[in-house]
Amino acid sequence: MAKDTSQHSSQGDASTPPKNTTNKALERFKKQQPKELDISLLVEQILSHDTTALSQGITLVESTQAKHAEKAQQLINQCLPHANTSIRIGITGVPGVGKSTFIEALGNTLIKKGKKVAVLAVDPSSTISGGSILGDKTRMETLVRSKDAFIRPSPSGKSLGGVAQKTRESIILCEAAGYDIIIIETVGVGQSETVVHSMVDFFLLLKLAGAGDELQGIKRGIIEMADAIVINKADGDNRKHAREARNQFKKALHLYPQSPSGWLPEVLMCSALHNEGVEEIWELIERYLDIVTQNQYFEQHRAEQNTYWLLQTIEEQLKTSFYNHPAVKKALQSQIEAVRQHKITPFAAAQFLLDLNKG
Amino acid sequence: MAKDTSQHSSQGDASTPPKNTTNKALERFKKQQPKELDISLLVEQILSHDTTALSQGITLVESTQAKHAEKAQQLINQCLPHANTSIRIGITGVPGVGKSTFIEALGNTLIKKGKKVAVLAVDPSSTISGGSILGDKTRMETLVRSKDAFIRPSPSGKSLGGVAQKTRESIILCEAAGYDIIIIETVGVGQSETVVHSMVDFFLLLKLAGAGDELQGIKRGIIEMADAIVINKADGDNRKHAREARNQFKKALHLYPQSPSGWLPEVLMCSALHNEGVEEIWELIERYLDIVTQNQYFEQHRAEQNTYWLLQTIEEQLKTSFYNHPAVKKALQSQIEAVRQHKITPFAAAQFLLDLNKG
Repeated sequence: MAKDTSQHSSQGDASTPPKNTTNKALERFKKQQPKELDISLLVEQILSHDTTALSQGITLVESTQAKHAEKAQQLINQCLPHANTSIRIGITGVPGVGKSTFIEALGNTLIKKGKKVAVLAVDPSSTISGGSILGDKTRMETLVRSKDAFIRPSPSGKSLGGVAQKTRESIILCEAAGYDIIIIETVGVGQSETVVHSMVDFFLLLKLAGAGDELQGIKRGIIEMADAIVINKADGDNRKHAREARNQFKKALHLYPQSPSGWLPEVLMCSALHNEGVEEIWELIERYLDIVTQNQYFEQHRAEQNTYWLLQTIEEQLKTSFYNHPAVKKALQSQIEAVRQHKITPFAAAQFLLDLNKG
Repeated sequence: MAKDTSQHSSQGDASTPPKNTTNKALERFKKQQPKELDISLLVEQILSHDTTALSQGITLVESTQAKHAEKAQQLINQCLPHANTSIRIGITGVPGVGKSTFIEALGNTLIKKGKKVAVLAVDPSSTISGGSILGDKTRMETLVRSKDAFIRPSPSGKSLGGVAQKTRESIILCEAAGYDIIIIETVGVGQSETVVHSMVDFFLLLKLAGAGDELQGIKRGIIEMADAIVINKADGDNRKHAREARNQFKKALHLYPQSPSGWLPEVLMCSALHNEGVEEIWELIERYLDIVTQNQYFEQHRAEQNTYWLLQTIEEQLKTSFYNHPAVKKALQSQIEAVRQHKITPFAAAQFLLDLNKG
């Protein structure tokens, strides 16, 4: 790797406050009128690995203001030819599993190997809670200060689809800015794992060893998505439990049909806090990449993800515009009630509402 | 049960050819002009348990001719207040598992208990294969001749959604015609199990004992839907394997979160051919019904199924009308190609197509 990092050093060294913060970019951005915003310049800065420009670009992409939409589209389109260069890793796990510590450990391991690492998040609850899981950056103290790391909290938004779109577009900008590894974390609210799974190359489920029955209470479909399950906090007295959990998960994985990737998901243990087992996880991911590059699943999978997002976006938009139609909005609840009480068939009610939409 | 069966006896006794065949109804129906078709009379006949009228009604519902649609809707609307009276049981299993033999054994058991049984099918492949799984009625020899059974092959149709809608509407007619138990079978092509699962009260997965590893090769999500797994052909030398299979499935079921019904799915063995274990399966279903009636899940579940079908139908219609828009149809493939090759983002391509749809 011979990436130009001169842009970073000009912005301060590791002892200055986190330069990844978007405040500076936000201020600069807010002062500018959209017509002043020079997209070509911004692209040039992003391509020369300027993290402030990257932050500014992502802020533009995340903007909900109509006047920014066209500029954002120009920016994405100009970055797109330089994208698709990274490895995208999805990480999920319930709160308390140690996601931040794990990402910090994995991120630092990768940076030591000469990689540049971006960490994004998909957190559909961030609008409600008013802050994202990555908002508290003190949880990734060392990573946030590294010149080769870029950390960005979850975009906020009303719908998971909207949040996901912004994250996917941000991936493009991060890739154009030279990040080799994009880690996308999600706390797993609603369908957010599915959404993250459909934008990454490798999906990792982080777990703790529990009280014996590891598989109860796991959300439906999560295990099927995992390329690896990692039992974190496997240290000290916990080690025995972690080994038992590993065996249970291994058996559970065996129940699922093999993925078209040709990869057999594995279960590993680690202690992110003590940096044990983290290296092995990266080796595992590299083994995965070897297989899916050779059998061409990697590229095929990305192409299919793109198609999925195209169709998904169309269908979400169709639904949004239908359910926001004033006449439909007004009649929907009473139709649902009638249908629930068997007063009208679902098909007749659907036709009634569809006719309102046309009218 | 004190159902009026005089309509049946007037049509012949058990030794005459299967009266359930739709040929007669079809001929009568084809001769009639839609304006001549007296829906009130048809409803009256259906409500007085006339199976020929029921067949004719279903043929009307299944018709793809636009001129029949309004009449069909009238018929369904007039039957609707008399519907929702049956227990709906979904049965799935791969070809060779013995579905027809099983349905025949279960149906006969129920008829001996004084029930009237209708058997419908959802077979999305029936258009392709030119015949439905129930087309060959000789596979249910005794059931087809019973005056208390009504057997109807899968409607044909271009989309699974369309096939499912017709089957759901047929359920209403069958219930109005006094059938206590509606069995809906599916061979499990594509998403047909999901579709059947969403229109029944109890979902039964029929399996054979295999060569040891029972869980490999089972379609994703099927086990999660099952209220019972029944291992068929558990007779003779097969008994030992069946017991082993039962234990494996019991363990597998344990892996899934409990259903909101409060019911814990069970695994049973039977030999439909020798009529062993069939009675026990009905007892199991009755136990289920006791639980879900008491905790009100039964009614709540049906209400939710209706809502699901309402929203599902709307969304399918929106998609159908979008993808059939001439400009969209023309541009879709090239947009998918561009998206697959990372030449345009999925979101930009979606917007382009959505704009075509508006124009």
